[in-house]
Amino acid sequence: MEQKIEQLLRDSRLHNRIVSEETAASWINDGMTLGLSGFTRAGDAKAVPSALVDKAKQENVKVNVYTGASLGSDIDRIMADAGIVHKRLPFQADSTMRREINHGDMLFVDQHLSHTAEALRQDALNPVDFAIVEAISITENGEIIPSTSVGNSSIFVEKAEAVIIELNLAQPAEMEGLHDIYEAGEQGNREPIGLKHVDDRLGSKGIPVDIEKIKGVVITNQADSPSTIVPPDEETAVMANHLIDFLRKEKELGRLPDNLAPLQSGIGSVANAVLHGLLDSEFTDLEVYSEVLQDAVFDLMDAGKIRFASGCSITLSETKIEEVYADMNKYRDRLMLRPQEISNHPEIIRRLGLISINTPIEVDLYGNVNSTHILGTEMMNGIGGSGDFTRNSRLAIFVTKSIAKRGDVSSIVPFVSHVDHTEHDVDVIVTEQGYADLRGLAPTERVPLIIEHCAHPMYREQLYAYYKEACEQGGHTPHLLEKAFSWHTNFAKNGTMLEKSTLGV
Amino acid sequence: MEQKIEQLLRDSRLHNRIVSEETAASWINDGMTLGLSGFTRAGDAKAVPSALVDKAKQENVKVNVYTGASLGSDIDRIMADAGIVHKRLPFQADSTMRREINHGDMLFVDQHLSHTAEALRQDALNPVDFAIVEAISITENGEIIPSTSVGNSSIFVEKAEAVIIELNLAQPAEMEGLHDIYEAGEQGNREPIGLKHVDDRLGSKGIPVDIEKIKGVVITNQADSPSTIVPPDEETAVMANHLIDFLRKEKELGRLPDNLAPLQSGIGSVANAVLHGLLDSEFTDLEVYSEVLQDAVFDLMDAGKIRFASGCSITLSETKIEEVYADMNKYRDRLMLRPQEISNHPEIIRRLGLISINTPIEVDLYGNVNSTHILGTEMMNGIGGSGDFTRNSRLAIFVTKSIAKRGDVSSIVPFVSHVDHTEHDVDVIVTEQGYADLRGLAPTERVPLIIEHCAHPMYREQLYAYYKEACEQGGHTPHLLEKAFSWHTNFAKNGTMLEKSTLGV
Repeated sequence: MEQKIEQLLRDSRLHNRIVSEETAASWINDGMTLGLSGFTRAGDAKAVPSALVDKAKQENVKVNVYTGASLGSDIDRIMADAGIVHKRLPFQADSTMRREINHGDMLFVDQHLSHTAEALRQDALNPVDFAIVEAISITENGEIIPSTSVGNSSIFVEKAEAVIIELNLAQPAEMEGLHDIYEAGEQGNREPIGLKHVDDRLGSKGIPVDIEKIKGVVITNQADSPSTIVPPDEETAVMANHLIDFLRKEKELGRLPDNLAPLQSGIGSVANAVLHGLLDSEFTDLEVYSEVLQDAVFDLMDAGKIRFASGCSITLSETKIEEVYADMNKYRDRLMLRPQEISNHPEIIRRLGLISINTPIEVDLYGNVNSTHILGTEMMNGIGGSGDFTRNSRLAIFVTKSIAKRGDVSSIVPFVSHVDHTEHDVDVIVTEQGYADLRGLAPTERVPLIIEHCAHPMYREQLYAYYKEACEQGGHTPHLLEKAFSWHTNFAKNGTMLEKSTLGV
Repeated sequence: MEQKIEQLLRDSRLHNRIVSEETAASWINDGMTLGLSGFTRAGDAKAVPSALVDKAKQENVKVNVYTGASLGSDIDRIMADAGIVHKRLPFQADSTMRREINHGDMLFVDQHLSHTAEALRQDALNPVDFAIVEAISITENGEIIPSTSVGNSSIFVEKAEAVIIELNLAQPAEMEGLHDIYEAGEQGNREPIGLKHVDDRLGSKGIPVDIEKIKGVVITNQADSPSTIVPPDEETAVMANHLIDFLRKEKELGRLPDNLAPLQSGIGSVANAVLHGLLDSEFTDLEVYSEVLQDAVFDLMDAGKIRFASGCSITLSETKIEEVYADMNKYRDRLMLRPQEISNHPEIIRRLGLISINTPIEVDLYGNVNSTHILGTEMMNGIGGSGDFTRNSRLAIFVTKSIAKRGDVSSIVPFVSHVDHTEHDVDVIVTEQGYADLRGLAPTERVPLIIEHCAHPMYREQLYAYYKEACEQGGHTPHLLEKAFSWHTNFAKNGTMLEKSTLGV
């Protein structure tokens, strides 16, 4: 074991900085700001945050927690339960933490995932006291090799007062070499980002660090939490087919080449399932330029459909983890992990002309999208990277089932109760009913397409009734402000968005 | 005259293509799509659209009209009045056209100004039949030199079936050389845009064109419409001072250098007045990277405050036009006009780290911004470039008076009736009451800042009442969906957003 660790900590100055997680946690004081590695349950700092929760049982500790995105290993849950988080950003996806946020017991800043690094550079957030970053090794030339995610780790390491490394022996050492760490630099004194193809390498294979800044190294041996996605089902397969029909028509019209354009796909089961649908399509030689790489990306690589995938984290199901980690060398040359600022950068998204595929909570008659808030008030997870991609991609596609809660909720509503993506930025809506291509359409042209091709039949009449009454009052974007949220308030009161008349009551 | 025209049409093949505007208009048939030059009343095609309106008196002509932004010379008004426009994009600002749009008599697509060029390249809009472009000359090597705006002219010329030139003798010939025409190229096969400083030159001084594509040249002699902005007043001066206070604090905190960062300022009197306020500030050596350059930019250049200004159009008041045109050589080396895709490009806005200053219609308690719709339904002008800049700038600032209509309308409302800029993208709100810096704040942290520093005192109590009641229901973003638009519906019914209790009724 000792020998292995020396092989992984290749700067010998680090050998006497190995400490327990309790010691590392003892350095963290009330009021500090921590920058934790971790993006969608991958590569999160695991031991020190847990030890900090233990420490907080003895003394008063409340900290700000910045991460890449959501954490696994129950870290967000135990931190929220212990009440040690003052402010959390830019994303989370834990039910306990969500409850704390919505009860007003914890502050949460819902940020575009490409923006956190800029905000830190601009000194527009509290400065980071400790970067706590999971690594698989530290090289002889002073580079931290991240594990299964890069996320915001490089900017945290750069900006933090001090760095704590969690050297995780459970992560595959073969990942060394597939990261590409590039620092954008100060705004106003910055070069163009030289990436022209998804597989272009821009920077170093690890995060450059002054070894003297590393205050301690904690040795851990704990795998990432597997992803919780559920396998594709009949309904998601139908949705995938609608999406593929759309892409096929675009290709036939000469708007897209045979291998489409680099694909981005959001987090979660639906996005994974839709991407999975490409397995049975004619498209091949595909490229991925995304944030999290989920199971479907690896399935598509195995099937020879995906040529190369660039992301900022790898989050897999339990069985897929075993498969992929056991054979990492098979994927190494076709994968790259970058800082989330680069995976989600508007400059690159626009240049490459991505096809972005994300999942909304609800969509309205005019194509505005709510990605974050239940009934306009309760935070679900956060906008994540969906805004980074949607605004700048070539095709901004949103995919959702047309109803939820066995039909008591319609995903298509008169007016979304929170707007994360405006009508200006949304190109195509896909549900199991079909798809609506909204490009180049005025608001009143979009409505019938969305109702006919996306809404569930049980809600179509009700949507038309709202729209027809709104049109009597006129306007570029007809609405009845007094009834705009009546579907939501109806659900809150009666447990359904269906109107009584439709229910036959 | 003949000799002058030969000097301006330097490819002799064009000499026998000079036609009357009536002849040019005769080529335009029902159902065609036109790409007109023109951005914020500057450099618009004037003669041919007017002749087309005349022709439409005799025969049925309805066309799609794409432009850079708003047109001057009453072109949008007479086209709307004649009912010859089927679909208009991406921006307009004419009261007659607005009425047609809001009556549902004309389709309008409200588009980010940097997106139209991409949509044309992607073949996601109707293809352009005729590009009708105002020019000050055509060079011997086949370049069209635009006049006071570039707008979308270069992409229209590239994509159109045929081109009609309006050679306008009334525009200053000395402008030749201050345009910089750069074509981004196809997505996926595109170089980084090499602009690192506001004064970097990327392309050619004119729009490259195959001379054979120019079907006709119409000679005109008509000045641009002057801008309709009103001079700064006491209230806008107060707003400017609040903005400058904010910028000064940023500088003192080391977040901005002495010369700030390149400035973008939206169209209109308030944006102009706020920029004008910098005249009396300590900031100097300023740079502008914006779309329209208004009076204030030239005032600041005259005062030695602005080093260089890049835009895509110049729109000045009547007196300023005389001054500037009479002395164009004085400004030539400190000015550049680019295609609006480049002036508004996310890649450059993010790289340079712009300070963007735009004016909203209304802002809500959480910092969401409505830039386009009155009472959620009636289109005002359009989002213009505000989204291009806001999303990607270093500091996204919105400046507005806290009340309108003598106090019957509050610019700060519980829930904006249309969202153009989401809470994720809005950094600072400025009114005559003060400013609220929202960066890094959770929703509930933003509310008291916006109420105390931005809302008018006459509406503060009413805002707190809404917020307090909303907080009783809880949530990350507390709202009362059943009352969210009550201020708007109250205004629609009673002519005021003030509640009766506050009015003492």
